[in-house]
Amino acid sequence: MLDYLKKSCAELEEEYSKILSEYNALKMQGMKLNIARGKPSKKQLDAVSDILDVMHTDDDFDIDGIDVRNYGELAGLACAREYWADILDCKPEQTFVGGTSSLNLMFDVISRAYTHGLLNSERPWCKEEVIKFLCPSPGYDRHFRVTEFFGAELITVPMTATGPDMDLVEELVKDPCVKGMWSIPKYSNPEGIIYSDETIRRIAALKPAAPDFTVLWDNAYCVHEFDGDYVPFPDIISLCEEYGNKDMVIEFASTSKITFPGGGISVLASSVENIAYFSKLFAVQMISYDKVNQIRHVRYLKNKAHTIELMKRHAVLLKPKFQTVLRILDEKVKPHGFAQWNSPKGGYFVSLNTMNGTAKRALQLCSEAGLVMTPAGATFPYGIDPNDSNIRIAPSLPPVEELEAAMELFCTCLNLAALEKLLNK
Amino acid sequence: MLDYLKKSCAELEEEYSKILSEYNALKMQGMKLNIARGKPSKKQLDAVSDILDVMHTDDDFDIDGIDVRNYGELAGLACAREYWADILDCKPEQTFVGGTSSLNLMFDVISRAYTHGLLNSERPWCKEEVIKFLCPSPGYDRHFRVTEFFGAELITVPMTATGPDMDLVEELVKDPCVKGMWSIPKYSNPEGIIYSDETIRRIAALKPAAPDFTVLWDNAYCVHEFDGDYVPFPDIISLCEEYGNKDMVIEFASTSKITFPGGGISVLASSVENIAYFSKLFAVQMISYDKVNQIRHVRYLKNKAHTIELMKRHAVLLKPKFQTVLRILDEKVKPHGFAQWNSPKGGYFVSLNTMNGTAKRALQLCSEAGLVMTPAGATFPYGIDPNDSNIRIAPSLPPVEELEAAMELFCTCLNLAALEKLLNK
Repeated sequence: MLDYLKKSCAELEEEYSKILSEYNALKMQGMKLNIARGKPSKKQLDAVSDILDVMHTDDDFDIDGIDVRNYGELAGLACAREYWADILDCKPEQTFVGGTSSLNLMFDVISRAYTHGLLNSERPWCKEEVIKFLCPSPGYDRHFRVTEFFGAELITVPMTATGPDMDLVEELVKDPCVKGMWSIPKYSNPEGIIYSDETIRRIAALKPAAPDFTVLWDNAYCVHEFDGDYVPFPDIISLCEEYGNKDMVIEFASTSKITFPGGGISVLASSVENIAYFSKLFAVQMISYDKVNQIRHVRYLKNKAHTIELMKRHAVLLKPKFQTVLRILDEKVKPHGFAQWNSPKGGYFVSLNTMNGTAKRALQLCSEAGLVMTPAGATFPYGIDPNDSNIRIAPSLPPVEELEAAMELFCTCLNLAALEKLLNK
Repeated sequence: MLDYLKKSCAELEEEYSKILSEYNALKMQGMKLNIARGKPSKKQLDAVSDILDVMHTDDDFDIDGIDVRNYGELAGLACAREYWADILDCKPEQTFVGGTSSLNLMFDVISRAYTHGLLNSERPWCKEEVIKFLCPSPGYDRHFRVTEFFGAELITVPMTATGPDMDLVEELVKDPCVKGMWSIPKYSNPEGIIYSDETIRRIAALKPAAPDFTVLWDNAYCVHEFDGDYVPFPDIISLCEEYGNKDMVIEFASTSKITFPGGGISVLASSVENIAYFSKLFAVQMISYDKVNQIRHVRYLKNKAHTIELMKRHAVLLKPKFQTVLRILDEKVKPHGFAQWNSPKGGYFVSLNTMNGTAKRALQLCSEAGLVMTPAGATFPYGIDPNDSNIRIAPSLPPVEELEAAMELFCTCLNLAALEKLLNK
């Protein structure tokens, strides 16, 4: 095998011919697979579909005198708030249980920040000259898009092995136009990084110039280990309080990758004052969220310990897929020396950096052979990766055999794009 | 019995003493009942709880190759769009199936109008000097509050027996600041009026000055007859198209009062162009709504004919309650000649106009005796009824016996407040 970066032009030309025929052969197989998003597989969904059997008799509907089928309880059933407090290690009164989508809760927070302002805002953000938002990258395209949608200037903060570059963050928040930061603190999307304790403390201790600077703490993968035991994680809300920043963080989570994507329950967690503020704002748009689904989830998931047990059903299905990705990358790409990737123990993604200037081309080659992956650039603000290098691999959806074929093709495309670049093809 | 308006002061004083002791006696009974909102009763919810039994085997999850438990299909499952098109008599491609709350869809439409503009907006509404919104009144407080929340000037349009005063509406829409109108066209909240065909045609034919003038057509009670057969109702979307106003109307409905309040499915229906526009906007906040609940509802409700059949389960429980309200009003208030009310055949409310300047006082008396009703004024913009006369009665929640006691108390309070007013007490 060749380290492409150390070889002669002639050797590379020979390799190029070989890889090109390999690619053409794979193309002939007529693959048709879309792994653009972090979707659970059918087997994962089958493994938790017994959740639909927990609601039956009339007794299931009366929870402490509240009929879960009727209107009421905007902030969620007490038992649902207790469930999320257990999961996130915060207090029930610090939680607000929403509908099926935590993304929608995040959107609503940013949307209301624009139209009405946050709790500590001097004015609605739409009345500010400029709003800037910190986007640790590679990161989650849907996060970035929410703030872009409202006209915020997105500022890329590089991710390190321990989380966002905190030296830079501490510097950037001195600008009063910087109003917030996106974060996926555990098994970050796409890098699979767990923020270090030091990073988390430095975030909680930030001294931003904007009084309404807000960390959107998307704890999307809070119990989503697929390899090894549950990794305890600090409660950001009490940490922020400890540093005099009690309203600075808003945490989010959902059961989208515990039970059903788009069919679960979500939560917003923050200071009691923020919960009161958002409860007032959200009362204009909602009478109450789906309490039938709340009680269904609480009955099924019970508590944190039981949820962690249940997550093993997902882990046993997910782990072989990540192993497949890593094995084939090790076999087919590693020896060529031009790409690096992470080996996460939780979350839904492998983040790969290929040769600069070749990510788009590699994914174009994939697409022409029938494999759709997350678009290159998607992990950066505005969908533009300045190095055209980062690729998010989402292995969860297809069965292992299909994933193997997809990875063979993907690696071939990476190699081919790198060779084209080196040979100026 | 006395017609209060035709009696002498002495007669009224005597009546006042009688009614006051009646009130004090009722107060002693220690009622504790809240009928402020149009909540279905426990029996109604029990009558449709078999909806929770329709999703079981794995086969239930694969709908034309789409796994309803996974992400995808932002505008809703094809079968859910067909269901709503059948209910509303429009086309499936004119529908967008949302989450549990049609109010939230309405809020999102107005919120996006403010931050980004509607399809035919020249600019986002937040960039306009003034936005005005027409509010047929008495109307629905939650509607009015959505537009008030975004700073719109609310303009009261009187309701007539055939719908909003269309002479006035046609005049008002000549003002380019008038951007829209709220409407509940069938069994309006609270009046229970069905807009006449002429009113509906005049709405569809409006020639508003604002290019983005929008009728929010909340068909909340589209199949909600409790007395008599289903009343057919014209499709406003094709009517608007007929008059060259294809993007002017956005229709809403939900199953909140068909299955579970806050646990059902909702719909937004409009021109195909509007559906495309909102699908693009809503994609920023949502990956997809709850398709498990969509298929659950489609399996259970099947189609319009079956839904109308099922609504009879609600009707048989609701009709006696409305009869109770009307009977007791007839007995205890009608002879006194100072109040008028509607006798609806569908919807959730009886709208009553009591003696001017006494609605607040009457409801204060109710509240002091343990009965909470919709606050006086709630049916008008900004919660201010200029006549302090309109009261919304929501009889659906309590069992008939409790409702009887509540109505006895309510009538006593109406009479007492009227007597206080006449006697300057």
